[in-house]
Amino acid sequence: MARKIVVIGGVACGPKSASRARRMDPDADITIIERGEILSYAGCGLPYFISGDVPDIKELMCTPLGVVRDTAFFKNVKDINVLNRTLAEKIDRKKKEVHTINVQSGEKDVVPYDSLVLATGGMPFTPPIEGVDLNRVFKLTYVEDAQAIDTALKKGDVKNAVIIGGGLIGVEVTEALVKRGLKVTIVEMMDRILPGLFDDEMSAFLTGHLVQKGVTIMTDTKVSRIVGDSQGGVEAVETDKGKVDADMVLVAVGVRPNVKLGSDAGLDVGPRGGLVVNERMETSDPDIYAGGDCVEQVRLVGEQKVFVPMGSTANKHGRVIGTNITGGNDTFKGVLGTGIVKVFDFNAGTTGLSEAAAKEAGFDVMTTLSPAPDKAHFYPDALPIGIKLVADKKSRKLLGAQIIGPGVVDKRLDVVITAITFGATVDDLANLDLAYAPPFSPAMDNIITAANVLRNKLDGLARGYSPQEVKEKLDKKEDFIILDARMPEEIQEIGRIDAANVINIPLGAVRKRADEIPRDKEIVTMCKISLRGYEALKILEGMGYSNLAFLDGGMLLWPYERIKTLP
Amino acid sequence: MARKIVVIGGVACGPKSASRARRMDPDADITIIERGEILSYAGCGLPYFISGDVPDIKELMCTPLGVVRDTAFFKNVKDINVLNRTLAEKIDRKKKEVHTINVQSGEKDVVPYDSLVLATGGMPFTPPIEGVDLNRVFKLTYVEDAQAIDTALKKGDVKNAVIIGGGLIGVEVTEALVKRGLKVTIVEMMDRILPGLFDDEMSAFLTGHLVQKGVTIMTDTKVSRIVGDSQGGVEAVETDKGKVDADMVLVAVGVRPNVKLGSDAGLDVGPRGGLVVNERMETSDPDIYAGGDCVEQVRLVGEQKVFVPMGSTANKHGRVIGTNITGGNDTFKGVLGTGIVKVFDFNAGTTGLSEAAAKEAGFDVMTTLSPAPDKAHFYPDALPIGIKLVADKKSRKLLGAQIIGPGVVDKRLDVVITAITFGATVDDLANLDLAYAPPFSPAMDNIITAANVLRNKLDGLARGYSPQEVKEKLDKKEDFIILDARMPEEIQEIGRIDAANVINIPLGAVRKRADEIPRDKEIVTMCKISLRGYEALKILEGMGYSNLAFLDGGMLLWPYERIKTLP
Repeated sequence: MARKIVVIGGVACGPKSASRARRMDPDADITIIERGEILSYAGCGLPYFISGDVPDIKELMCTPLGVVRDTAFFKNVKDINVLNRTLAEKIDRKKKEVHTINVQSGEKDVVPYDSLVLATGGMPFTPPIEGVDLNRVFKLTYVEDAQAIDTALKKGDVKNAVIIGGGLIGVEVTEALVKRGLKVTIVEMMDRILPGLFDDEMSAFLTGHLVQKGVTIMTDTKVSRIVGDSQGGVEAVETDKGKVDADMVLVAVGVRPNVKLGSDAGLDVGPRGGLVVNERMETSDPDIYAGGDCVEQVRLVGEQKVFVPMGSTANKHGRVIGTNITGGNDTFKGVLGTGIVKVFDFNAGTTGLSEAAAKEAGFDVMTTLSPAPDKAHFYPDALPIGIKLVADKKSRKLLGAQIIGPGVVDKRLDVVITAITFGATVDDLANLDLAYAPPFSPAMDNIITAANVLRNKLDGLARGYSPQEVKEKLDKKEDFIILDARMPEEIQEIGRIDAANVINIPLGAVRKRADEIPRDKEIVTMCKISLRGYEALKILEGMGYSNLAFLDGGMLLWPYERIKTLP
Repeated sequence: MARKIVVIGGVACGPKSASRARRMDPDADITIIERGEILSYAGCGLPYFISGDVPDIKELMCTPLGVVRDTAFFKNVKDINVLNRTLAEKIDRKKKEVHTINVQSGEKDVVPYDSLVLATGGMPFTPPIEGVDLNRVFKLTYVEDAQAIDTALKKGDVKNAVIIGGGLIGVEVTEALVKRGLKVTIVEMMDRILPGLFDDEMSAFLTGHLVQKGVTIMTDTKVSRIVGDSQGGVEAVETDKGKVDADMVLVAVGVRPNVKLGSDAGLDVGPRGGLVVNERMETSDPDIYAGGDCVEQVRLVGEQKVFVPMGSTANKHGRVIGTNITGGNDTFKGVLGTGIVKVFDFNAGTTGLSEAAAKEAGFDVMTTLSPAPDKAHFYPDALPIGIKLVADKKSRKLLGAQIIGPGVVDKRLDVVITAITFGATVDDLANLDLAYAPPFSPAMDNIITAANVLRNKLDGLARGYSPQEVKEKLDKKEDFIILDARMPEEIQEIGRIDAANVINIPLGAVRKRADEIPRDKEIVTMCKISLRGYEALKILEGMGYSNLAFLDGGMLLWPYERIKTLP
């Protein structure tokens, strides 16, 4: 008899599991249960519908060829039954049945299974704040959410938006709303935007860009309530740092795994709140598989359990499940916790462990900040990017990377992702035979240069201070010298560190003018990207100076105040 | 006493070795011997000077900050002595001396060394053809070559250019010359352009794009002579396939390692004509190191010796040499043979073994062709790319990749490069946690989809035919059916395979209209990218059809004739 496969959830992992199962077993009886009307929409595309980049929301619900993925499509093309507008209410694991209710007609039914797939996704978290039920307080999870926001914006009376939560979705929607002419304020409880993804100096770099684009960023700020007007709409958001005018509010404080159906049925739920699955994507019941945003998984570096909802991962889970549920054997080992966002003219990506996360996980870490143009510097549209690498001092293994800038970020991130997955050391990274021609990269790709700077630090060839460390020394009024090895015109153009203890000697003059540099103080060298800073350090070292360090990332990655006068 | 380091060659590996050595040993006495005036110019940028993308050739000779890398720069900034306009004539290994001659003054000198670095680069090969010495017959290796071409073009009487050699430089310069208004013909001896880098179907794909841009491509064509006019200029190029008008000729038939100095001194030269070095970049004389375009090296996959001159590699060599020559220990394991080129609206990259090279090396190979948009299909500027993966059937390890198209090629290539370097299997590639957001990639990145298609083939889930294989079957008039699973409007738009045995049934109708498909013949399924082709195959398989295969890469990667009528 044909095996009965039932899939609950019709967005990413669900349809992928079902389609793969069909291709593996032409005889299987496959059913997808989905509470909405349409299956397999691209949730990640919703911000681009709001921005207008995707003019018709149907594009998010179609195949690349414009065919809507409705029940007829699944039946005709894939011979998969879809029960849409249908809610799975209960799983009876003994009888191997799913109890359903049609959300339109209220009709109840029971669907038997041999194998069950839970692809119930994530649920946006609603913080317990007064006013979250007011009109024009939105979330952004479903197609209907995006349509509701679009409709509100089209009325033309929305001028000020407050986004509660500075995570990926909050930041993506910020650009969309600014494009639609709104004044946007992001309110974030933590000390920086994208707090789980970026260390503070990298986040500060991104914040700088958002502020430049007219966005207001309030960090370390708690929302106490959303204030309504007399018509039940929104008027303002009240925080512990004051009131912010708002005609609309987007609540984007994160997503939680939607596990109720599974946990009610007694399936194991893990420390991160997701269903527990093994490498085969089996839950604690071997006849029930789960994947996508409702499961938690292993982070391949550091090996903790993490909850990282991603459409890309959900699709991979679906393929593994579709193979295993039809008698095959495939595994999914885990994720790195990769995230990437385009916001205005900046791209910002992260993978693996941040410096903070690595320290918390007990690693003795060494980091570097390395800015450089993303193509041969003479090539017309070369743009800068800044790379932060995080490595384990002892094993020299890469633990993570954060890359931000107007240039090409995703390529370097994907290289690091691949390298970390295979357990690469920083040294391995430095000699990769990456594709080089002037339109694509510098001769020494940015990621290779970053690796080499980190190798120098790991080898003890030079000490580097992070921007925060130098800022701290300045704030503490330590008695040290900052040697700025740039030419005066650069300082006038992009500014210098705002401190009295800066000495400016262009690199080419350092040997001659060394008598201007005191021998009894610590010297922190720097330049635009700190390559000349590093060279200056090595020159001074050669002249017998001993207390030397360079500023990681140079002026390009200095996230604090700067002034444009000569020291 | 300070160690004496002498470096011969001042372009890429040489200055890098010297700079690294200086940073590692502040006391060393370091000298660079260079026959030209200027050091460290970006040879790879010359085509972009000819095209006008780089308006001032000085940009190729400057640091990113506009400082010319002349002798004063090296002395002041790096405390490195440069003997420019100086030719190294002989190495006396016993006395450890280099005999030099100043090419301007004719003055001879002897420079003693403790350690010597040979970074003598490559030399353009000059084929023994009548007429190669005529005016306006150019090469493109040195700054002066690019300036000479530019000067000739500025005179305005050059209309027709013939490029002899369809390798990377030939193809790069083609775009530059077309941008300058010339009619360009590439004459290539082999059966395709970029023959060492791309298999024939991928090369054909690129040829199609060049032809579309008005370039004439003559393959399998031998140049017999360059015909001069009465003024000693060029008039035409004579080939075994006829005469081609030419007002200028670029000879770009490849580069040979420049090893004479080393081989005259008795250093080992390998089968590829390059100096033999070990992982530490030491030649057969432990006091002499060599790197850059004058050495041959190990290809990390397949493990043959190869000669792959690349500025990126030369820089990496330089760092390793600079470390080792000052008492450190670093190694360079080898290259993959990566190459990439931007030509008009196409990017084309390759790494590792081509299908042809892998077969020649004795591998039992499985390949796939996978076309897809490079970003989420709904994202505004998504553009297609086509990926060819080459893997070893037995170990399932990746051996190589070729990627071509208007979309983002270099990112996927760099991922494959990193994966191959760490010995990845196709399965490893498929679950990488690559960076996903709609502006950067599809949810399943192109490289992941390509890996999954190849896994299906390796697992025996479906048989794929390459375009050449299907073309061969057609040419042999085999009795089989091509099932085109696209919608009629697609066929009218992008065309179909030009054959009588094509049946068109859109995927959604395949189940219903299966009676139109004969059961006793072999069926080859396809669509735009062969995803629907693959689904159609699985549907027919489920209905009991047995002799099934799909066309790798679908219509998008079909490099042969097509017609736009319905079958």
